[in-house]
Amino acid sequence: MLSKSQIGFIKSLHQKKYRKENAIFIIEGIKSIVEFIHSSYQIHSVYFLSQYQSLLPNLPANIKLFEVNNAELEKISTLQTPQGIIALVHIPKDLVLDPNTLKNSFSIVLDGVQDPGNLGTIIRTADWFGFKQVICSGNTVEVYNPKTVQATMGSLSRVKVYYTDLPPFLEHCDLPIFGAVLDGTSLYTTDWGKEGLIIMGNEGQGITPQVMNLITHPVTIPRVGAAESLNVAVSAAILCADISRNLQK
Amino acid sequence: MLSKSQIGFIKSLHQKKYRKENAIFIIEGIKSIVEFIHSSYQIHSVYFLSQYQSLLPNLPANIKLFEVNNAELEKISTLQTPQGIIALVHIPKDLVLDPNTLKNSFSIVLDGVQDPGNLGTIIRTADWFGFKQVICSGNTVEVYNPKTVQATMGSLSRVKVYYTDLPPFLEHCDLPIFGAVLDGTSLYTTDWGKEGLIIMGNEGQGITPQVMNLITHPVTIPRVGAAESLNVAVSAAILCADISRNLQK
Repeated sequence: MLSKSQIGFIKSLHQKKYRKENAIFIIEGIKSIVEFIHSSYQIHSVYFLSQYQSLLPNLPANIKLFEVNNAELEKISTLQTPQGIIALVHIPKDLVLDPNTLKNSFSIVLDGVQDPGNLGTIIRTADWFGFKQVICSGNTVEVYNPKTVQATMGSLSRVKVYYTDLPPFLEHCDLPIFGAVLDGTSLYTTDWGKEGLIIMGNEGQGITPQVMNLITHPVTIPRVGAAESLNVAVSAAILCADISRNLQK
Repeated sequence: MLSKSQIGFIKSLHQKKYRKENAIFIIEGIKSIVEFIHSSYQIHSVYFLSQYQSLLPNLPANIKLFEVNNAELEKISTLQTPQGIIALVHIPKDLVLDPNTLKNSFSIVLDGVQDPGNLGTIIRTADWFGFKQVICSGNTVEVYNPKTVQATMGSLSRVKVYYTDLPPFLEHCDLPIFGAVLDGTSLYTTDWGKEGLIIMGNEGQGITPQVMNLITHPVTIPRVGAAESLNVAVSAAILCADISRNLQK
């Protein structure tokens, strides 16, 4: 049984303002929760229907556990169809991005991606292809948005997400800077090499001019049909798959 | 100025039941509307804020035009942020799928995809790569769902979408049947040839056993990292890009 103030607190975390104020975000579903428990994230508390208790691994004593009923779960869930278990997770302090750690690998860089589902899908794709980090411009959608977290399907527990001012970061990183653009070199003839950054732009506006100026390798996914553009998470995935293919040669 | 009954009618089309009953669906945004006007679809009526009138091409006299104000637009729009112009479009009679028309090309086949955004994104991707049709199992999400239509970004005006019972269709089509599975041949060594069907399964359950039995070429996108799976629209896009690359060789 949850108190009114507990329910009010969890519901407040549906909003960015209160997530930031409390440095806590919400995750839902047993699979994601188990993955976060086994990650470097710190769990704050868990709220579950009785049948989910046995699915939880052993937890440190400082994590508060609350059995809830369906009515309570519906109130605190961010989903139309709640998945039976919710956890609150502490937001880690802002990660400091050291460009030297990006050497000999590929990272995805997002310049103003706005749709929470797109960001989450990109994090999931990065995790599939073994990319360890996603680097976001300050105006990219918040990664702790419930729709983003849900779309990562647990991959947020493994992929590091940084927010930074992109132009100074790109100027000081000594890596090839690939960018997804409409008039670059064909993806099919791109030589990816062994390391680099792959920049994806905003859904409507693409890459900002300041960032565009810093791209050393513009890349285009060749179009055969008539669509004006591809979804940004789809474009990112096609580039990641090609990089992964190249690395496995 | 719209009447109460006009507003009620358009709002009813937000629901599948009434779209089916009236054989009408909603599209939003000037770009999509212009693309549908120039397609084989029949427009029923258009509702626009005054500043959008000049952006409309010449229309046949039987299409009803209504200037609306912001309050009316918010009532009839399916979007949180309406885009200033809405059109109602007649749903064409069920398209009859002739397997012979699929020869010498590739088509995407969806076995129970449930998320409207995923279906729309797949249609948009198909359009980018010049795939002319998407073939859906009967239990795949309805293509006239507003979220699907929106995610196609106008590509629904060009890509044909069929619904059919997949097993008998697949049994009688004389084409290679590729399927996206977790334990198939690596994408990077797949020989696509010049024609075929590419089957994508449901978001949670994958491909049904009856359809799985009919796959002649199981394909897997090699995983490097730890994500359990890829988003279905992302997987479809990676396969489409590889097929497109192969066709351009």
